[in-house]
Amino acid sequence: MATTENTNIVIFGASGDLTQRKLIPALYQLFASNLLPEKFTVLGVSRSGYSDESFRDKLHKALEDSENVDSVTLSRFIEHLYYLSIDPSDSSQYGKLKARLDDLGQAHGTGANNLFYLATPPSLYGLIPQYLAEQGLNKESDGWKRLIVEKPFGYNTASANELDDVIHEKFKESQLYRIDHYLGKETVQNLLVFRFSNGMFEPLWNRNFIDYVEITGGEFLGVEGRGGYYDGSGAVRDMFQNHLLQVLAMATMEPPSAIRADAIRDEVAKVMQSFQPLSDDDLKKNLVLGQYTASEVRGEMLPGYREEPGVSDESRTETYVGLKMFIDNWRWNGVPFYVRTGKRLPTRVTEVVIHFKKTPHPVFGKDAPENKLIIRIQPDEGIQMSFGLKKPGAGFEAQEVSMQFHYQSLEEATLLTAYERLLLDAVKGDATLFARSDAVKACWEFVEPILEYKEHPDALFGYAAGTWGPKEADDLLKNDDRAWRFPCKNLTNTEYCEL
Amino acid sequence: MATTENTNIVIFGASGDLTQRKLIPALYQLFASNLLPEKFTVLGVSRSGYSDESFRDKLHKALEDSENVDSVTLSRFIEHLYYLSIDPSDSSQYGKLKARLDDLGQAHGTGANNLFYLATPPSLYGLIPQYLAEQGLNKESDGWKRLIVEKPFGYNTASANELDDVIHEKFKESQLYRIDHYLGKETVQNLLVFRFSNGMFEPLWNRNFIDYVEITGGEFLGVEGRGGYYDGSGAVRDMFQNHLLQVLAMATMEPPSAIRADAIRDEVAKVMQSFQPLSDDDLKKNLVLGQYTASEVRGEMLPGYREEPGVSDESRTETYVGLKMFIDNWRWNGVPFYVRTGKRLPTRVTEVVIHFKKTPHPVFGKDAPENKLIIRIQPDEGIQMSFGLKKPGAGFEAQEVSMQFHYQSLEEATLLTAYERLLLDAVKGDATLFARSDAVKACWEFVEPILEYKEHPDALFGYAAGTWGPKEADDLLKNDDRAWRFPCKNLTNTEYCEL
Repeated sequence: MATTENTNIVIFGASGDLTQRKLIPALYQLFASNLLPEKFTVLGVSRSGYSDESFRDKLHKALEDSENVDSVTLSRFIEHLYYLSIDPSDSSQYGKLKARLDDLGQAHGTGANNLFYLATPPSLYGLIPQYLAEQGLNKESDGWKRLIVEKPFGYNTASANELDDVIHEKFKESQLYRIDHYLGKETVQNLLVFRFSNGMFEPLWNRNFIDYVEITGGEFLGVEGRGGYYDGSGAVRDMFQNHLLQVLAMATMEPPSAIRADAIRDEVAKVMQSFQPLSDDDLKKNLVLGQYTASEVRGEMLPGYREEPGVSDESRTETYVGLKMFIDNWRWNGVPFYVRTGKRLPTRVTEVVIHFKKTPHPVFGKDAPENKLIIRIQPDEGIQMSFGLKKPGAGFEAQEVSMQFHYQSLEEATLLTAYERLLLDAVKGDATLFARSDAVKACWEFVEPILEYKEHPDALFGYAAGTWGPKEADDLLKNDDRAWRFPCKNLTNTEYCEL
Repeated sequence: MATTENTNIVIFGASGDLTQRKLIPALYQLFASNLLPEKFTVLGVSRSGYSDESFRDKLHKALEDSENVDSVTLSRFIEHLYYLSIDPSDSSQYGKLKARLDDLGQAHGTGANNLFYLATPPSLYGLIPQYLAEQGLNKESDGWKRLIVEKPFGYNTASANELDDVIHEKFKESQLYRIDHYLGKETVQNLLVFRFSNGMFEPLWNRNFIDYVEITGGEFLGVEGRGGYYDGSGAVRDMFQNHLLQVLAMATMEPPSAIRADAIRDEVAKVMQSFQPLSDDDLKKNLVLGQYTASEVRGEMLPGYREEPGVSDESRTETYVGLKMFIDNWRWNGVPFYVRTGKRLPTRVTEVVIHFKKTPHPVFGKDAPENKLIIRIQPDEGIQMSFGLKKPGAGFEAQEVSMQFHYQSLEEATLLTAYERLLLDAVKGDATLFARSDAVKACWEFVEPILEYKEHPDALFGYAAGTWGPKEADDLLKNDDRAWRFPCKNLTNTEYCEL
């Protein structure tokens, strides 16, 4: 296993929202759990004119009232924070960064192991690596150098390839850690453990026994003030190309030869490269793009997407994607995967539903109970299995019953949030849960026809905020005599969908 | 489906314990649930000198204080009861029975459909059918005639064959209903529904994916005043040859071509005929017979078997059987079945435990969690599945978790007791849940070597009352690097073993 070594963690975009809301709290929790190296520094970098002191004050204030924060531990943690005010788009200022890192390395015994976290606007993802390299901050002779790149990695195939090429000029693929925070989720990782630690499920996990698969990644929230960014992105880029396809890959990949970063990522890339390319016919028949419209949900009037701040009132950006797709390999040939994601759905829920085929011979009649396995990613994380048992009483009738496992039933455990897990792994040099170049490319190539089709005048359907997307998305399954699973047992509010 | 037709139910042994404790209460419940035919009579037959009136009074008194008995319904039910005092071992008295049945059939419009229930000592099982036939009460020209035979059906292979031959002289196999009250249990029947209504379990149900199987049928009770009977019988005859092997057959049979009595019983007989015959070596190595000795259990001193009333103080009768056995067919070749039953075990529990093989390649290390499926027959009827999920936290460790379905979680349903179900089926003419001649023979032939081996001076081991049998039974599994599952989550008392 990888071990943690002393390190300097450099965060570009240190004055931004992600740093304050996610990265620093994650580093604090790792520190409090003694998971960070004995010696480490966190150097915030951005244009804002903070000093070490004022940067520390700002974050101290931001964290001190949080849950699970102990004031003594927080004070000790804060002492590891430093700040450097430079313009990261100006290569001439990187000499200061190099000098500051040398100083910190010497003063704290953290040496020249440097982890660079690019939490900046994507326009800087290509520049920063070059400027770091001009200072020799890509060379590993004196200590390792790693680069964490936030999402989105590219905007389409061409831009992703271009970004990849630029970074690869100075950094090796093995130094690159592309964030997909879905991969940091326990329950996404559990897809691997569930499938490959159990002798009783893997034999069923193929076209011989699986009828079809649903993957749902729903959000109740709308664009929440990020309308300007989102309107240039849309659901395909924001959720589908990365998170949903990643979940699909974890649910369908071949067993890796070992639980090792490259062994796992080889299989992820392989299955992504096997996604059946979308034909023109597929785009017309198997794809549904949607955009939410104003609607009253549980007594509250929610605005339509085009009324959101920052969104053009003629916007044709999709906030919903539903796709029926296939995987062209021996394991999955012919099995339909129905994948959907959207904003302003009735609730927040991500899950994978495996529908098994019926028995070869229907001895208990045609209405045999469905056999399905639900792997709930969030919320109410867990597993549900539905199958038939004897209906009590005379005769031999089957009825559907189900049993469940809820993660929350476990004794308290060291639960790591996605950013905690990913930062910890990057510090350890374990790239398993980061997207590799070939996988990212495969996903962009797969969605490229959708990105082109978006421009088509008939491409977009409306759906009322708070519903499960356009009715055309229901037809995707209805045409195959199926229906989307309604994922919540009791949908009492928009934030908790009970398994 | 079979339908209920008007009928006369004749109970031989009507003054006995089984009639009062099981048969009449079962008939009452069927009546109260409107499951009996519109027209029916119950004619009790035995030597005791009851009149219709005194027979009715006795049963009225016995039932009126029971749970779930409504006094108005009971009074209506009681009016269907009649009594005939004859000596059933005296053929000359059967003319009276014939005359009485003719009278009842005319008076009640129940005609000549007669169901004869032999709830007598086994010594009469051969005689009654002959004497009935002398009166033409085996002939079906004027209405059907069915014969329910209580257990035990025979004492060994020779006696079972002999009994079969005698009955078959006068009655066809299709008229015979051999009771195995285990087959009347919902959860035993559910073995069929669970296996053959679900597409996701049956593919795993074979030697490729199953490592081994445990079947436990434990009782906490001792011989409870039946010492005289039991001492001449023992656990092999009383539980193993019939109930346990029947459960094993339901868990291992091939799918029937339809849910029809003979289609199902064909498969049951076939798998029983495939039990690998026990060699001398098997009897020495794979069989453990035990007899309980006095012991203090939860503060109460329990007598040893030889101290029980009616039991010889030099008795060598077994109260425990543990056997490792195999099934010689394509599905099960090489899979060990560990089957055990005993009296004075720590609790009452019957269950089937399917242990699945580990994954082909142990990517998560050698200590992968066990995959097992527990089908609980009684008590706390249900299903438990244990498998591995990701242990929350850093890394990729698997940990064993489990999920359960409890029958008691179902909405109230028409739950039938074993005798209710079996009586109802016999009235309907559905023989699915009755043991067929070929199956009974196959089981006797299989246990015959054990019956002979019992006489061997080293055959019997002691075990303290309230323990899980002789330690030699643990060795049966320990020698294969396995262990019996401890079946109870919280064993708080001797009557409730929580799944």
